[in-house]
Amino acid sequence: MSHIFDTGNASWLLMAAAMVLLMAPGLAFFYGGMVKTGQVITMLKMCFGCVVLVSIIWFAFGYTLAFGKDAGGLGLIGGLDHVFMSGMGLKSRTGGIPTVTFSVFHMSFAIVTVALISGSVAGRAKMKGWLVFACAWTLLVYVPMAHWVFAPDGWVSRQLGAVDFSGGTVVELASGAAGLALAAVAGRREDFERQPIRPHNLPLVVIGLSLLWFGWFGFNTGSSLGVPGAAAMGFVNTQFAAGAAMAGWAVTSYWRTRQVGLLDISMGAVTGMVAMTPAAGDVTPFWAVAIGFLAGLTCAFAISWKYRFGVDDTLDVVGIHGWGGLFGMVMVGLAATGTMTGKKGLFYGGGWDLLGKQLVAVLVIGLFSFAMTALIGKLVDRTVGLRQSHGAEEHEQVYQNDWDVQFKEIADALRGSGVDEGASEPDASALLDQVRRILAADPEQLRD
Amino acid sequence: MSHIFDTGNASWLLMAAAMVLLMAPGLAFFYGGMVKTGQVITMLKMCFGCVVLVSIIWFAFGYTLAFGKDAGGLGLIGGLDHVFMSGMGLKSRTGGIPTVTFSVFHMSFAIVTVALISGSVAGRAKMKGWLVFACAWTLLVYVPMAHWVFAPDGWVSRQLGAVDFSGGTVVELASGAAGLALAAVAGRREDFERQPIRPHNLPLVVIGLSLLWFGWFGFNTGSSLGVPGAAAMGFVNTQFAAGAAMAGWAVTSYWRTRQVGLLDISMGAVTGMVAMTPAAGDVTPFWAVAIGFLAGLTCAFAISWKYRFGVDDTLDVVGIHGWGGLFGMVMVGLAATGTMTGKKGLFYGGGWDLLGKQLVAVLVIGLFSFAMTALIGKLVDRTVGLRQSHGAEEHEQVYQNDWDVQFKEIADALRGSGVDEGASEPDASALLDQVRRILAADPEQLRD
Amino acid sequence: MSHIFDTGNASWLLMAAAMVLLMAPGLAFFYGGMVKTGQVITMLKMCFGCVVLVSIIWFAFGYTLAFGKDAGGLGLIGGLDHVFMSGMGLKSRTGGIPTVTFSVFHMSFAIVTVALISGSVAGRAKMKGWLVFACAWTLLVYVPMAHWVFAPDGWVSRQLGAVDFSGGTVVELASGAAGLALAAVAGRREDFERQPIRPHNLPLVVIGLSLLWFGWFGFNTGSSLGVPGAAAMGFVNTQFAAGAAMAGWAVTSYWRTRQVGLLDISMGAVTGMVAMTPAAGDVTPFWAVAIGFLAGLTCAFAISWKYRFGVDDTLDVVGIHGWGGLFGMVMVGLAATGTMTGKKGLFYGGGWDLLGKQLVAVLVIGLFSFAMTALIGKLVDRTVGLRQSHGAEEHEQVYQNDWDVQFKEIADALRGSGVDEGASEPDASALLDQVRRILAADPEQLRD
Repeated sequence: MSHIFDTGNASWLLMAAAMVLLMAPGLAFFYGGMVKTGQVITMLKMCFGCVVLVSIIWFAFGYTLAFGKDAGGLGLIGGLDHVFMSGMGLKSRTGGIPTVTFSVFHMSFAIVTVALISGSVAGRAKMKGWLVFACAWTLLVYVPMAHWVFAPDGWVSRQLGAVDFSGGTVVELASGAAGLALAAVAGRREDFERQPIRPHNLPLVVIGLSLLWFGWFGFNTGSSLGVPGAAAMGFVNTQFAAGAAMAGWAVTSYWRTRQVGLLDISMGAVTGMVAMTPAAGDVTPFWAVAIGFLAGLTCAFAISWKYRFGVDDTLDVVGIHGWGGLFGMVMVGLAATGTMTGKKGLFYGGGWDLLGKQLVAVLVIGLFSFAMTALIGKLVDRTVGLRQSHGAEEHEQVYQNDWDVQFKEIADALRGSGVDEGASEPDASALLDQVRRILAADPEQLRD
Repeated sequence: MSHIFDTGNASWLLMAAAMVLLMAPGLAFFYGGMVKTGQVITMLKMCFGCVVLVSIIWFAFGYTLAFGKDAGGLGLIGGLDHVFMSGMGLKSRTGGIPTVTFSVFHMSFAIVTVALISGSVAGRAKMKGWLVFACAWTLLVYVPMAHWVFAPDGWVSRQLGAVDFSGGTVVELASGAAGLALAAVAGRREDFERQPIRPHNLPLVVIGLSLLWFGWFGFNTGSSLGVPGAAAMGFVNTQFAAGAAMAGWAVTSYWRTRQVGLLDISMGAVTGMVAMTPAAGDVTPFWAVAIGFLAGLTCAFAISWKYRFGVDDTLDVVGIHGWGGLFGMVMVGLAATGTMTGKKGLFYGGGWDLLGKQLVAVLVIGLFSFAMTALIGKLVDRTVGLRQSHGAEEHEQVYQNDWDVQFKEIADALRGSGVDEGASEPDASALLDQVRRILAADPEQLRD
Repeated sequence: MSHIFDTGNASWLLMAAAMVLLMAPGLAFFYGGMVKTGQVITMLKMCFGCVVLVSIIWFAFGYTLAFGKDAGGLGLIGGLDHVFMSGMGLKSRTGGIPTVTFSVFHMSFAIVTVALISGSVAGRAKMKGWLVFACAWTLLVYVPMAHWVFAPDGWVSRQLGAVDFSGGTVVELASGAAGLALAAVAGRREDFERQPIRPHNLPLVVIGLSLLWFGWFGFNTGSSLGVPGAAAMGFVNTQFAAGAAMAGWAVTSYWRTRQVGLLDISMGAVTGMVAMTPAAGDVTPFWAVAIGFLAGLTCAFAISWKYRFGVDDTLDVVGIHGWGGLFGMVMVGLAATGTMTGKKGLFYGGGWDLLGKQLVAVLVIGLFSFAMTALIGKLVDRTVGLRQSHGAEEHEQVYQNDWDVQFKEIADALRGSGVDEGASEPDASALLDQVRRILAADPEQLRD
């Protein structure tokens, strides 16, 4: 059977795209389970809003600006040859696979990256402001960076020659830096000092983690189809790093609090996969374990910096994705074997060269993302508004069942009658009568 | 390595089958989260009941009647050459892939289609009646239609020559028409007038949506393996249509209510994928966006027709799948590029020919499914019964946790003692004593 | 395009590995939904703990001891040539696919097997003891058995010549036998006599089931890549067996209780896939249906043996995985067609030979797993402790929302004040005052 495509590789990349697209809901559940009960719906909307907007932007201008033929030859931005995905037939191919597959794989990266940032302003962002920000950030920040790093004629991949397997800079570090800037612009939650978040629904967090984990196997392998076996290596390294990072995080957590919670190991798993993102296919399993373990160990500290600096990065985008991405990029400079890219790290006889390039990439992309985000964030805040007004913070309630509705009604009845006001307090029987009336009513009617 | 199969394509189709099979639970959660707390278990059972029954029917007679060699040459029904899946060895192949893979891929379509219909009678169907209906519908309605459209010697695909990429008629339109008939036969819920459903658990709805979405990538791509690149195009178009339809639905929703809820964009996403089902591989990305957007925009209206006509299509199977499937079929007649099938739509110079064929397919399949469903539904209703008796509607309770059990007990205690009866009302302390007794008991014992 | 690998098969196996890895969270949710509210977090931690530890063990010694070149030639244990996954380059291959892919596929088996055992001690295991047990069991029990059965030079696959397609012995029977031994060592829950478990969250159970089901398609197909078409057959047989087993379980359940619950069909589905595990690719679809149906019918009885023998196998690891795996192994001896392995069962003219071999494999592996588990379990119990102390059993609470917290506080207030103590009972208004104070407080502050 003769084909113009390598159908095996094409199948895997299509699969990988589907897996990465599952990371958007995965992230929505991961974040949604961590916030308060009243905020989970908002969190889901923020993430799915990114799915809608980034898909449409990618279709219209995103793909062509990121992966169109370089405009100007400086590796800064792609040309407009594929506006509205035009000029891509069924038979166009990129490295043996259909170009259409390549484009949708990278669309999924864009969606996840933007959705990641939402965690830094969880529980206080105005929906309209967030959506405007997401559009602007996609076009003005993500798309150029994707060209720099992922396009073969981008300046990071070609001129500079840094190694970033699956987006340690563009996806992880960039979302971390953006989270830092946006959290600062949005300001702190009112109850920020009151210490770590308490997830309202840990099983939902773990459902999210599971989808993220599954998706990450696509994320960390799809970029390597040119090299036989590299996808497999990226896959196994992702698993090892996740496991080792859970262990690393657990060590820090136990050392600090004598406890290891389910949230700790969940965040640890994400951390390991973040750190492996720039390195997945180009380090040995041994280094995957080492990088994962160290990432978990240190990120468990990094997430507490927000208290020191007073920036309310609510769901730890900076600590996990920013620090994890940076750490992974540096480790590539040390431990890359060069099997895939031909570029060896310090430990494999490549000298300081690669490490320097990694640091330049980290510095430029970190600063670019931070500065642009601050700028866009400020503009959005001044115009449509980025911060939810206070009373509205817990606007959208999710009722798990009818009894919740009734309990809330009863609670309001009891709470409203007395305690601090003191005057004319009804007696116990009158209150019980009121409670009975609430219980006799149809809970559906109470919902408004 | 020489093979009798194209292992790349075979891998993708096997994967696609697994993804589509995940749509059955996806639908169960999507529907289950939308109904009332007391109905979620019933909803899950209705969907998983389809998994059981359709699998067994497909094994016994379904596959052979749908894809066996045409019996009679009119393209109406397949022969009995593969009863009990016999006569299919490891090496049988259909278009370069194992026939066994092809058969399981189409089994997954049958399961999803039947499960879809359950939404139209949510919250009031009798389990036994539903299961009998599901069996009859699979054999008498789905299987013949699948032969017409999906078998190469079926009359829609061969004699008529309409284009239905992945089941816009057989799956979407047919389930919509069946939903309309079945909802009419089953009658309205008692509280139908009381306006739109309020999902008891939106996160569960979104978990379902996520699995549906993931599965749809398999659904809308597996039918095209003969044409290199077409699966990739079907994939990317599915994503674009989903995103655009979410936007379209949001526009209608905002225009009507000044709000865009999470349920709105969830239904919008489904709508876009429905409309893309008949078109996925044979339109350009531009048209995918346009079709998706228009589908979302119009389906958001279509779901309110049920109030005008007084048919209680509870979870909007008619509005979303019926209208969405019909709309997509028509759009194929307009916008098909012919790259895959060689048949061009009106906008691409193919004239009115294809559009006419699309309308014939829509009309015949819509009417066939509607009429047969009404007939089967009536018969089932007269014999085993289709409608749950009134008190039993909220029979199966799901207790989220022990406190719920206790709260319900307490509520019953308080509610039961007085209010409307008036006589011999216990005083406040007696009631509190009762409450304390309930709280002191083991919640596990209260569950019966 | 020339490759050193069959990219189609390599893609499928990588996909299968990702799917099987999704079974670990699937199992966590399946088990987690079945236990009481207060135990779900512990259950999730027990399963994810296996993910961490087994990954690291597999990396360090597990892979090489299981799949390294046989040490000694007796087929008992692999050599140490791949410690720390060394000596495996990108181009190493095993049967046309990258060795790295093969190794990660089998790592996922190890993770799932160990996690399965946790169900037998649900709700009473000490976390530390469980984790130590899991490490020891992986290295001392799973790894040797994997060498015996899955390595081409293991004694079961080579010397004995029994047929175990995907781990009916190593995974299913072994986890069942281990569950029996561990449940006996750990002792019964205090409320064991009080009959069947009542899942605190059935939708979560079904979410788990869905992921297990999806993953099982990878589990039951990945082992057959050498034979074209066998993966497809394994896939379709898995689906048929699951469906038929749900029906079989429903029959038993209806016969016994006149009811078929959602939990019944969920357990039925798992049972069918368990029984198909040793047989998947080497029986006809007809036998898949028959084996599934009989497995469901009998396992629904098998799970009640625990009451007769007084062993508290809490989540029925013995009844489902032990009995199901044994039953499947025996059925292979009867119904194997020999298409894949060349070994025919009794019904296909192979005589009693294969059946005898199957029974030897079952006996040896069942006894080995049981005896080793009892030994390890006892040792762990004597040292770090396996059994949670009584008060601590419901240690980790999961709060679904703020009202739950408040309700619990109120319940404690009401419960604590009187009833059995009698003395100095506060009056109704004093109690209501207390309740109002609780409601006026911030629920977040109540959480500690």
